[in-house]
Amino acid sequence: SVSSTPIRATLFPGDGIGPEIAESVKQIFKAADVPIEWEEHYVGTEIDPRTQSFLTWESLESVRQNRVGLKGPMATPIGKGHRSLNLTLRKELNLYANVRPCYSLPGYKTRYDNVNLITIRENTEGEYSGLEHQVVRGVVESLKIITRQASLRVAEYAFHYAKEHGRERVSAIHKANIMQKTDGLFLKCCREVAEKYPDIKYEEVVIDNCCMMLVKNPALFDVLVMPNLYGDIISDLCAGLVGGLGLTPSCNIGEGGIALAEAVHGSAPDIAGKNLANPTALLLSGVSMLRHLNLHDKADRIQNAILNTIAEGKYRTADLGGKAKTTEFTKAIIDHL
Amino acid sequence: SVSSTPIRATLFPGDGIGPEIAESVKQIFKAADVPIEWEEHYVGTEIDPRTQSFLTWESLESVRQNRVGLKGPMATPIGKGHRSLNLTLRKELNLYANVRPCYSLPGYKTRYDNVNLITIRENTEGEYSGLEHQVVRGVVESLKIITRQASLRVAEYAFHYAKEHGRERVSAIHKANIMQKTDGLFLKCCREVAEKYPDIKYEEVVIDNCCMMLVKNPALFDVLVMPNLYGDIISDLCAGLVGGLGLTPSCNIGEGGIALAEAVHGSAPDIAGKNLANPTALLLSGVSMLRHLNLHDKADRIQNAILNTIAEGKYRTADLGGKAKTTEFTKAIIDHL
Ligand SMILES: CC(C)[C@H](C(=O)O)[C@@H](O)C(=O)O
Ligand SMILES: CC(C)[C@H](C(=O)O)[C@@H](O)C(=O)O
Repeated sequence: SVSSTPIRATLFPGDGIGPEIAESVKQIFKAADVPIEWEEHYVGTEIDPRTQSFLTWESLESVRQNRVGLKGPMATPIGKGHRSLNLTLRKELNLYANVRPCYSLPGYKTRYDNVNLITIRENTEGEYSGLEHQVVRGVVESLKIITRQASLRVAEYAFHYAKEHGRERVSAIHKANIMQKTDGLFLKCCREVAEKYPDIKYEEVVIDNCCMMLVKNPALFDVLVMPNLYGDIISDLCAGLVGGLGLTPSCNIGEGGIALAEAVHGSAPDIAGKNLANPTALLLSGVSMLRHLNLHDKADRIQNAILNTIAEGKYRTADLGGKAKTTEFTKAIIDHL
Repeated sequence: SVSSTPIRATLFPGDGIGPEIAESVKQIFKAADVPIEWEEHYVGTEIDPRTQSFLTWESLESVRQNRVGLKGPMATPIGKGHRSLNLTLRKELNLYANVRPCYSLPGYKTRYDNVNLITIRENTEGEYSGLEHQVVRGVVESLKIITRQASLRVAEYAFHYAKEHGRERVSAIHKANIMQKTDGLFLKCCREVAEKYPDIKYEEVVIDNCCMMLVKNPALFDVLVMPNLYGDIISDLCAGLVGGLGLTPSCNIGEGGIALAEAVHGSAPDIAGKNLANPTALLLSGVSMLRHLNLHDKADRIQNAILNTIAEGKYRTADLGGKAKTTEFTKAIIDHL
């Protein structure tokens, strides 16, 4: 299903290893004849000499116009005063749901087989409100904000996703036994939405218990939906079950169908520029962008090539115990297309 | 080292399976000639017909007087208006640190070998402040409170514990890249204390990354110290690595050396009174109470009997895939003393 005019998509290579893994995506997409024309913008923690900025209005506008984009890692300096760029993008583009599929990669052995779950994280509020202050010396507080609007919106997305993807169950993860009002409101919204989807099973699981069950038996879960911080924690835990953030895709969904796919691993400054980075997470995120565009043939073709290359095991990057350079791994995927 | 006058310790059997597993502890402690005289009080979610209360002043006073106690599970009804009894005990008795050792049980196979870590959780503040309100309709907020005093106190406890127990490293778990003020203060306090313990290694790990690393390779960690909610989550995750909350002990430490050990699993109302419950978590919590009392001989003797019984595998309760009744498992442990 190649369209005659190419689809414009924004590309933010990001910091550190970002440019190298973005290069890998571009080459593989090109080799697979994906009808995408990348509109590349620099967004990152260094000031871009060309624009004198780390995030220009044009970069945001590009995603708003194209409605699809792919984003590499951006470093989040701790305590540097300016807010994380990741968060800025989420807020500015109103990317309200973060979707992270997490499945065992055939041929890549971890302690867990047959993991196949999706975490859907509320992406705009909760513990990420940014509202914090010192009450008196030695006493500080952070505000966790939960709104009915954002909770309904992400719950609706989760159930819709479950239905579209033939998933059986949605689990709402919470700590409403302690945060009765905030997490209580979140659950109330999930319940309201659940009633509109009688064919999808619905359950509520306390976050601590959820983490215990995930490490004991991840097959107990299917689609998980949760407030922001729990999503941050649980999506990383789930990624760990199948090998880590270097292997798992992520896609941020915004109002009006915007999709900004992203690799959520770090920018790995220690190996940046050394042709050692593993592009898998960014590639699979690119694949989820293709699915969002309904380019399923292309998505399948690229995804299979990636999974087969990893399964074959001849070309694996150092993080997966191999010796392949980024460019060798990229070439191997192209050969598997 | 049997003292001539017995040590008085408080016992709260708790709800559901609590009385059965408390009975198992009493029998095993008696068979091991532990010089403890239990002072039993009812604390639980049902109103005690004798006292017309679910928590009497005498129960609290008993722990304050005896300075040591053991507590079974107490149910936390979601949204029932009255605060969790577990939390009430922590607050009323100022139990500021919750210590949960987590180690692989010899002979009980999980996906992980050689887990051996300790989570130390701040137990009084953070997301558990209980401060929540509706701002306007559809917008609620919860306050996370971090104080210098409570953070220093738990950090001090963690480093002291590491030193006393010959541990090498303390990892402070946080999300200071997002909650720069609250988690930032927590980290600052940990750093201050770390400087007083130059022989103990100190590191800081972001909670999401910590969860990923824990499921990939728990051997990376030794002692972990963290704010309340992260402790709740990570201690359950760690318990899951070695088999679940039915197998892991917990001990709450208060000012002036009060210790209230507790089984942190649920009250399992579905199997209550059926002689099916696994008393291991409460037993091992009792063992940590003995260690707190410096009764290490007794502690070793009982702990070995428990571990050997489980390792032998002949008598295991249903949750561990066995067929033994609570009383049969108890008897087997006594035979192993
Ligand atoms: C880098 C950090 C700000 C971010 C988050 O906390 O959301 C990251 O952990 C993620 O999951 O995307
Ligand atoms: C029962 C619940 C209130 C409690 C908590 O959240 O602290 C429990 O999960 C625990 O870890 O002791």
